[in-house]
Amino acid sequence: MTGDSRSVGIVGAGQLARMACEAASALGLRTVVLAEHADDAATGVADEVVLGVPSRSKDLRLLADRCEVVTFDHELVDLDVLRTLIDEGVTVRPGVATLEMAIDKAEMRARLSGAGIPVPAHLVLADPDPAAIGTFASEHGWPVVVKAARGGYDGKGVWIAADAEQAAEICQQASASQVSLLVEELVAIEAELAVLVARRPDGETRSWPVVETAQVDGVCREVLVPGRLTPDVAAAARDVAERVAEVAGSVGVLAVELFLSRHGLVVNEVAARPHNSGHWTIEGAVTSQFENHLRAVLDLPLGSTAITAPEVASVNVFGSAEGADPGAALADALAIDGAHVHLYGKAPRPGRKLGHVTVCGEHADDVRARAWTAARALGTPVPAGLIVPEGVAR
Amino acid sequence: MTGDSRSVGIVGAGQLARMACEAASALGLRTVVLAEHADDAATGVADEVVLGVPSRSKDLRLLADRCEVVTFDHELVDLDVLRTLIDEGVTVRPGVATLEMAIDKAEMRARLSGAGIPVPAHLVLADPDPAAIGTFASEHGWPVVVKAARGGYDGKGVWIAADAEQAAEICQQASASQVSLLVEELVAIEAELAVLVARRPDGETRSWPVVETAQVDGVCREVLVPGRLTPDVAAAARDVAERVAEVAGSVGVLAVELFLSRHGLVVNEVAARPHNSGHWTIEGAVTSQFENHLRAVLDLPLGSTAITAPEVASVNVFGSAEGADPGAALADALAIDGAHVHLYGKAPRPGRKLGHVTVCGEHADDVRARAWTAARALGTPVPAGLIVPEGVAR
Repeated sequence: MTGDSRSVGIVGAGQLARMACEAASALGLRTVVLAEHADDAATGVADEVVLGVPSRSKDLRLLADRCEVVTFDHELVDLDVLRTLIDEGVTVRPGVATLEMAIDKAEMRARLSGAGIPVPAHLVLADPDPAAIGTFASEHGWPVVVKAARGGYDGKGVWIAADAEQAAEICQQASASQVSLLVEELVAIEAELAVLVARRPDGETRSWPVVETAQVDGVCREVLVPGRLTPDVAAAARDVAERVAEVAGSVGVLAVELFLSRHGLVVNEVAARPHNSGHWTIEGAVTSQFENHLRAVLDLPLGSTAITAPEVASVNVFGSAEGADPGAALADALAIDGAHVHLYGKAPRPGRKLGHVTVCGEHADDVRARAWTAARALGTPVPAGLIVPEGVAR
Repeated sequence: MTGDSRSVGIVGAGQLARMACEAASALGLRTVVLAEHADDAATGVADEVVLGVPSRSKDLRLLADRCEVVTFDHELVDLDVLRTLIDEGVTVRPGVATLEMAIDKAEMRARLSGAGIPVPAHLVLADPDPAAIGTFASEHGWPVVVKAARGGYDGKGVWIAADAEQAAEICQQASASQVSLLVEELVAIEAELAVLVARRPDGETRSWPVVETAQVDGVCREVLVPGRLTPDVAAAARDVAERVAEVAGSVGVLAVELFLSRHGLVVNEVAARPHNSGHWTIEGAVTSQFENHLRAVLDLPLGSTAITAPEVASVNVFGSAEGADPGAALADALAIDGAHVHLYGKAPRPGRKLGHVTVCGEHADDVRARAWTAARALGTPVPAGLIVPEGVAR
């Protein structure tokens, strides 16, 4: 630590850490990131970089020595190592109990349903067992969703089993990875929602307005605020998300992804960190998810989460099939009125998430069209199955 | 340069460079700063730091080698050295002709009045000459303002001569510094205004809404948008400022400070870079002065300069008499609803500019009161002569 600045250490140095470092710099906070590679997205903007591996206690200690609180860019951490650090006196926020829930989907389902929070009907299998899946399906109907309880993200580790035969195949694939399986009813989704919740150690909580997300193959492609959600649904989702944060005992930002079906809301996923569905808050809310995450983990007062425009759209930028650098097309994207372009400084690869574009405005169709036009200019392919606004080239 | 990222080199690593680096990171641009000290404000957030002296050609070349365009955090540069670099093929924006005008007040006055832009009545003296000042005063009245044509900032290098005796004293003081003097009528100021103008190499120009500033002893204490300015005055000021940018041939952001008197508007100062009077644009405008400066010097399309709220107030944070660290009082400032706190990571010293606070909202009195409350919490003294909002402790 240099001088008297408050300081935050971040495990991981991806785009979430990068945007947190940008927010930290404005507040005069020092940042140290634990990066696996010298060219990770956040290494240029952090005050200090510790090169190391997030699961190695030696490297985490190096990080902890250089800051007053340790927080996270991702959940690929070893909880036993973290417990040891906490025992040694390191402040880790969110804590292990929260991370456990975010890392282990079976644990998350168990804790949330135990607290009376709606989740899809589910079954946890310590070992892959096609017969048990069959029994579950006879009650809830085929197809069923099978998920690796740990390690999945962006659609990876999630399978749909249409029948007993596919269930058996999935069990065979999964048996190699030795993780528990979570078997769930396939919810007939009317809308996918997300709520970001910031929470301080004393329980002070602020959530941002609910967003509607569009996911293709488990990957978030766009975020619309407020989307097509009625005020009733939006209020209910926010209420559920704030209860999830309480059950999780979270400190910092927690992202809650929900499904809306004709039976109501259920919680799908929980992430114990700033989240892709909250990038719109940088320009679209009084306080961004990154700033409030920093405030929360440093136990500083949370900022207003009010929206700053009637309509906000945020579209993710992905690498084109040609692997073109979106930075080379920056002029075309910036020519779109009101396009807030964020590029993460990552090497372009086909399908890799490289940035996002946010547009704030008065009309839902207009902000969505402008955000998509800019994202397309940056090379983002339009995924099959997503209806893009009129006038946006496929 | 690493990879294909667009890159900007900044001469100087103060708070302006720091905020430019924050904006650059969001856009995926690489930044390199030429810093005199390793702990300068921008060194933590820039991608790369070159340690060196802005007037030394060797150090400027080191910077230029690592970026595609060189721009500035301050005007303490040697124009002859820059001319040499430009001859060697380095892209420098703004160019020497613009910098010359920003560095030399006599040059600025001459070029602006030559273009028919209103400036105070003035006289340039190559050598201090009390008799010439007396002749000027007999025409325009005592007191007169005497300024060092070069090197003054934040009220330094500016004197008021009430009579011939004081004029003689000032001349004696000034004779040591060997700079030209600018003698001016003392304008009866009704309001102090500032306009920020972004301009691309092809002349594309966007200006932000006019602001009213409060200066105490030549130092800006607060910025109010739109302040007490009538739409007519605001439009006229914007028009004058855009003409100044054209006359200056500026590329990047140019700040134009004006006086409003009962005779109309006159240009007071010009700075060829982002400026303290434009910090409010980070939250109060669609595109900040820092982002548009980067866009302009990289010849990228400029972003919208529209205001995002009806009223914006920005108050500068200065070191308290006790030299307390404002970072230690961060919690108190962040407890103020809507307070956007910016701290520059500079070592606290009494009277040193350490940060600023911006509040956006619906009512002028309310945003000003909140911004002052937060700035006071951070230790900012209230200068004698400035009326602070009711309820703000002096």
